[in-house]
Amino acid sequence: MASLEKIKTISIYGMGLMGTSLAYALRQSENFKGIIYGFVKTQKSKDWILQHHLADHIFLSEEKKSESYLLSSDLILIGLPILDSIEFIKYLAEMNFKGLITDMGSTRWELECQIREIEKKKQIRFVGSHPMCGSEESGPQYYIKDLYKNKLCIIIHKLHKNQPPDRNFQDLEFISNFWKELGMEIDYMDSKTHDYILSYLSHAPHIISSILATVIGKQKELIKRNQEAPIPILGGGLRDMIRIAGSNPKMWYDIISTNKENIIVALKEIQKELEKITETIENHFDDWWFEWQNNAKEYRNVIYGISKSDYE
Amino acid sequence: MASLEKIKTISIYGMGLMGTSLAYALRQSENFKGIIYGFVKTQKSKDWILQHHLADHIFLSEEKKSESYLLSSDLILIGLPILDSIEFIKYLAEMNFKGLITDMGSTRWELECQIREIEKKKQIRFVGSHPMCGSEESGPQYYIKDLYKNKLCIIIHKLHKNQPPDRNFQDLEFISNFWKELGMEIDYMDSKTHDYILSYLSHAPHIISSILATVIGKQKELIKRNQEAPIPILGGGLRDMIRIAGSNPKMWYDIISTNKENIIVALKEIQKELEKITETIENHFDDWWFEWQNNAKEYRNVIYGISKSDYE
Repeated sequence: MASLEKIKTISIYGMGLMGTSLAYALRQSENFKGIIYGFVKTQKSKDWILQHHLADHIFLSEEKKSESYLLSSDLILIGLPILDSIEFIKYLAEMNFKGLITDMGSTRWELECQIREIEKKKQIRFVGSHPMCGSEESGPQYYIKDLYKNKLCIIIHKLHKNQPPDRNFQDLEFISNFWKELGMEIDYMDSKTHDYILSYLSHAPHIISSILATVIGKQKELIKRNQEAPIPILGGGLRDMIRIAGSNPKMWYDIISTNKENIIVALKEIQKELEKITETIENHFDDWWFEWQNNAKEYRNVIYGISKSDYE
Repeated sequence: MASLEKIKTISIYGMGLMGTSLAYALRQSENFKGIIYGFVKTQKSKDWILQHHLADHIFLSEEKKSESYLLSSDLILIGLPILDSIEFIKYLAEMNFKGLITDMGSTRWELECQIREIEKKKQIRFVGSHPMCGSEESGPQYYIKDLYKNKLCIIIHKLHKNQPPDRNFQDLEFISNFWKELGMEIDYMDSKTHDYILSYLSHAPHIISSILATVIGKQKELIKRNQEAPIPILGGGLRDMIRIAGSNPKMWYDIISTNKENIIVALKEIQKELEKITETIENHFDDWWFEWQNNAKEYRNVIYGISKSDYE
């Protein structure tokens, strides 16, 4: 385990909540003694990061002089929405970037396919990472201390399930250790399986959260009463369920664009279950409820990892 | 504000998470100097509450000798599922109970209608309360310190919107002050409006949470991968969204039984929005997404009370 101490220069390309939290984590690590180059889109973000000393050098992405810093880095960590990441990796390949590249994207199949296209023409050292953490906020000012500690990082080591790992072993190990040294647990996954799993565990739920907020927000009498109440009427259950509604529309646009088929399948299954349950509550509300609820609780516990499933 | 100090004896009938948290809150209050009688269903709960000194006297509901304690109380606070509360209030009316009664039920219309039926034959002093707090757990061992502090308590003061308040003013004031002195904010509502609002803000979301857990839990490959991972794959978004799945099936059976019409309307609207969004993502995924997401975020903020709506 010695990735962090080997890094002389790291570029964090896109310092939003995730990238800025990463800069903070690096600064906190005893092993990291390198220099952080940060890249942001707006002057406001640049000023904020400078002020909070969360990068050694901070550039607007468009600044021409930033290019030499970027291309001289040992490691580039991309903190962009997934479609922007793809464009950026193409650019790095064009520029014959020799260092290692990783990212933090929430979908993997489309990006990995594009990487294979790039590899037909150019050498590129890329290992895909998906750290399973974040929040509904965006922007450097929302960075979270210890965001990565004791969380899961999925590392993509192949395109398809039944293929052998196709990433350079040394680079794969380097990136794994990078996250481990920041306190993360690692799970290796092929990109296809990743996108199927995440459509259920993250992407479809995001849409459901937004739907809930939308349907409730359109109830005029309810909203009026809610605003007249001394504190909002909602309890903790709904508060938690709509927390992620509408978080970073561009990030989610890219996620859905690159994982639409899986997400549609997941949404249609939720739709089918919702229709069935609504119809059964309306017409035959009786003892099935208890079994259904007990099962839902058991499923929840299995998903949480606090209970065993029958699938073992 | 002097309700708590007037209470010589209070019966908490049903000491689950809510009732036990209330006993704790009373014990913490400087103003409360009365005696707490607790009533539970199981020997296990009885032992636990005794051991933790959360009642002065604790009885199994079925114990015959408990009746004289119960019926001599100044105030009975009911911590039962709503259908059980209705039966229990009928019993108290039969026994000509002279003290004041309140409860903590999540639906109000059915109960208030039944109270009006009872009042045709018997005198009864009842004021309905719905403290907006709790958790997905049940049982006295899950009691929460400060559960009621800075939360909203809805107090039902009439059956219908356009009627004058029909609860005895002194009793209404007493119960309002009771909750205020425990740190709660008060909102008065008619029972019909309450049930409409809560179907959107609580009841339908509970069902959606259970549906999500169910659909995901049935994905065998996903669950297998989730269990093989060093820590569960899910992020904070889904974790929060399925937290309330399957909480206390009997409590929720009663809630749905007594608010079915409103809940069905809410579920069908969610269904309609889900169909629309799924279809639009599948066939025309483009710029509408940004507006829809920005609106969802704004709706969320309005529901949270951190933003203004157009409805004012």
